[in-house]
Amino acid sequence: MGATAKHDEMPMSRAFAEAEGAGTRGEVPVGAALVRDGAVVGVAGTRVEAERDPTAHAEILVLRAAAARLGRRQLDDCDLYVTLEPCPMCAAAIGFARIRRLYFGAYDPKGGGVEHGPRIYDQPTCHHRPEIYGGIAERRAAALLQAFFRKRRS
Amino acid sequence: MGATAKHDEMPMSRAFAEAEGAGTRGEVPVGAALVRDGAVVGVAGTRVEAERDPTAHAEILVLRAAAARLGRRQLDDCDLYVTLEPCPMCAAAIGFARIRRLYFGAYDPKGGGVEHGPRIYDQPTCHHRPEIYGGIAERRAAALLQAFFRKRRS
Repeated sequence: MGATAKHDEMPMSRAFAEAEGAGTRGEVPVGAALVRDGAVVGVAGTRVEAERDPTAHAEILVLRAAAARLGRRQLDDCDLYVTLEPCPMCAAAIGFARIRRLYFGAYDPKGGGVEHGPRIYDQPTCHHRPEIYGGIAERRAAALLQAFFRKRRS
Repeated sequence: MGATAKHDEMPMSRAFAEAEGAGTRGEVPVGAALVRDGAVVGVAGTRVEAERDPTAHAEILVLRAAAARLGRRQLDDCDLYVTLEPCPMCAAAIGFARIRRLYFGAYDPKGGGVEHGPRIYDQPTCHHRPEIYGGIAERRAAALLQAFFRKRRS
């Protein structure tokens, strides 16, 4: 937990590209990539504004699309890469989808639900805890968010 | 909190009809109804199995549909009726959607995220807490779930 774990650079690069695309569209710049058998099988960036959907976070979109494509609601052979610590909604969804490993870029003390706030996977009512590798691209992810919120305030 | 609040019987009846329909389809029997200006503007039951979507809980479906129809991601003039205490994923989504009042049937000590587990709205990282009226149809909601799980085990 919190350790810089062995992970592929490529899926996180794809997640960052999605995050940057989301930021360009005026969305909170968060991106996600789903990996199965060593291959990226889905990517998404936030689409809350575009879809007028309060649940359209990158993680939810990539999980829903992959489950639909694979035809099953459990993705227990998949690993998820996200640029930011998932919020409580997404953390719980990741648990329901039985994701095997969760890699995320920056910790999010204000909105995260994995290592902050409700710490979803530490709850006795949580039925699945993925392996968690957080803070693996802390500076890049944090810089992306800071630039976005600085721009939005100006 | 936990008080039997003044609420309309009709939206909860619609939510129960959705829950029963979900149970008939082999889904966990939970239903939801969304109310705006005194009228039910959306209903849904669980569709996790039908859609192969781990996020297709009744609450998520009804929020997404209403936000799409109204063309906005915040539903701050809407009240949500659910047959069961929302899970952490749905509780967080309800917060993102800025739902005004949340009415739910039975408490869910094993999977609930409002009065149990992570208690989403009690977290300092939570930005919106609806008014909450829980346990307003405790016996009916509990009986529905018990019958479902008894049948599934047999």
